[in-house]
Amino acid sequence: MNRPGNDAPPVQVAVIQSSCGESKSANVAATLERLADAAARGAQVVCLQELFHGPYPCQTEDHARFAEAEPIPGPTSQALAQAAGQHGIVIVGSLFERRAAGLYHNTAVVFDADGSTAGLYRKMHIPDDPRYYEKFYFTPGDLGFRSFDTRFGRIGVCVCWDQWFPEAARLTALTGAQILCYPTAIGWLPEEKDEWGASQHLAWETMMRSHAIANGVFVAAANRVGLEGDIQFWGASFVVDPYGNLLGRTGQQAEETLVVECDLSLIDTARIHWPFLRDRRIDAYDGLRKRYLDTP
Amino acid sequence: MNRPGNDAPPVQVAVIQSSCGESKSANVAATLERLADAAARGAQVVCLQELFHGPYPCQTEDHARFAEAEPIPGPTSQALAQAAGQHGIVIVGSLFERRAAGLYHNTAVVFDADGSTAGLYRKMHIPDDPRYYEKFYFTPGDLGFRSFDTRFGRIGVCVCWDQWFPEAARLTALTGAQILCYPTAIGWLPEEKDEWGASQHLAWETMMRSHAIANGVFVAAANRVGLEGDIQFWGASFVVDPYGNLLGRTGQQAEETLVVECDLSLIDTARIHWPFLRDRRIDAYDGLRKRYLDTP
Repeated sequence: MNRPGNDAPPVQVAVIQSSCGESKSANVAATLERLADAAARGAQVVCLQELFHGPYPCQTEDHARFAEAEPIPGPTSQALAQAAGQHGIVIVGSLFERRAAGLYHNTAVVFDADGSTAGLYRKMHIPDDPRYYEKFYFTPGDLGFRSFDTRFGRIGVCVCWDQWFPEAARLTALTGAQILCYPTAIGWLPEEKDEWGASQHLAWETMMRSHAIANGVFVAAANRVGLEGDIQFWGASFVVDPYGNLLGRTGQQAEETLVVECDLSLIDTARIHWPFLRDRRIDAYDGLRKRYLDTP
Repeated sequence: MNRPGNDAPPVQVAVIQSSCGESKSANVAATLERLADAAARGAQVVCLQELFHGPYPCQTEDHARFAEAEPIPGPTSQALAQAAGQHGIVIVGSLFERRAAGLYHNTAVVFDADGSTAGLYRKMHIPDDPRYYEKFYFTPGDLGFRSFDTRFGRIGVCVCWDQWFPEAARLTALTGAQILCYPTAIGWLPEEKDEWGASQHLAWETMMRSHAIANGVFVAAANRVGLEGDIQFWGASFVVDPYGNLLGRTGQQAEETLVVECDLSLIDTARIHWPFLRDRRIDAYDGLRKRYLDTP
């Protein structure tokens, strides 16, 4: 198979899968260590899990937890920026953002390898399900779907619940993303795991593999691991290529950093062999902006 | 898990996977026999493979092959309508339609269980790849994405290449489809199979499972089987539930009819547990009607 496109060297992409204790400073310090370790292993683009700085805050609706948020820039984002510059790596960091009084977001920041901020993405699709009460905390994003040029490629970010929406992946890919990163916090509930746990995990991975295939991009998903209250976060972070092939997947039990090589020239190769972007019927997609297409 | 929604009995859904010889009358007769067999096994909704009445016509660009097309209604569609009425089954039939002089489509017809026509779908996304020269033959559909009420549920149809487009599945689901049928003709090319065959098949199935999950619908894919010229059609027809769970899959070598039970009340259950339709950001999807979102 010929591989036209750029001759750039492959990019080493990492996902860091962690468990969190109650201490924010300890969680951040542990993540900074893992970033150093990933960089030492050759990682160039590193995706952290959703809200890596603490326990997943949305299992209850608790006004006190808003105190965990920070402005951006703020102490935690600055620590990530410093790490990015120090190690010369791109970092995708997921933060609980305090934008203004009473205005909070679930926000991902892409830090370029010199420590500068390449861009912000504010989670667009906000879930609200038992023990995932995110609509209480997070204002839906108003920046749209985006991607950002970095030293090691153009990085798009969607966050957790966005995973289930093909629209989010498509729009992000159409902005030129080469690697689509998904900081994530998803796990099993005790009353569901035995019967539906395997199916839930497979559906989650299937959706993101489909985004890679449909859009001809690399997808990297970093999930949380460990038991927090009722939720057993299922780990299984992974990276897939533009054909949906699994390049690597972490386990479901332990903290782990996965580093895999991504040949970005495969994006062009995949898309000229599976030319979906060529054939989209943009003249017929108006209905996608509707809630439902009831037939009267 | 509680299952609100309708109390209708489950629906028996079948996919018929065939190989084709050169004789159209023999192919149609064999399919009519398989339809009778499926009905005898309890099938209520039956999906045929793409262009079931003959060898896949698009491996070359040959003006003579347009003679294989028929108007709708025409002899082949009438044979299917008669079979639907005779057996009391819904049939999704894929036909090479001659709509007018020089205007041909790749069209699926949904026949209701009384033999009437529930509706037509004309393939919207038309491929053009080595040995799949469909842009030469088929005018892109102008009916949009649709679904139709039948005796056994509301049926949506997309055709083959549509499989790779999340937009097609989403729009069809938004019209109320409960079962999304994909008549298909996809296979391996000899120069690719050893290295990429398994990955190609997995990507194909992954995409349609993702459509089931993202939209909370049943998906039934009927694929061709057997060697025709250079293409080894890979069979592996399947049906999945709204969680993406595989309900059944045929083999990759032989003709086969799969009949599985689909509990349509699962659609509501799936969607209230995974409420993606609730959370779509229809205010932010304008870009889906664009070819690309270049950043100037």
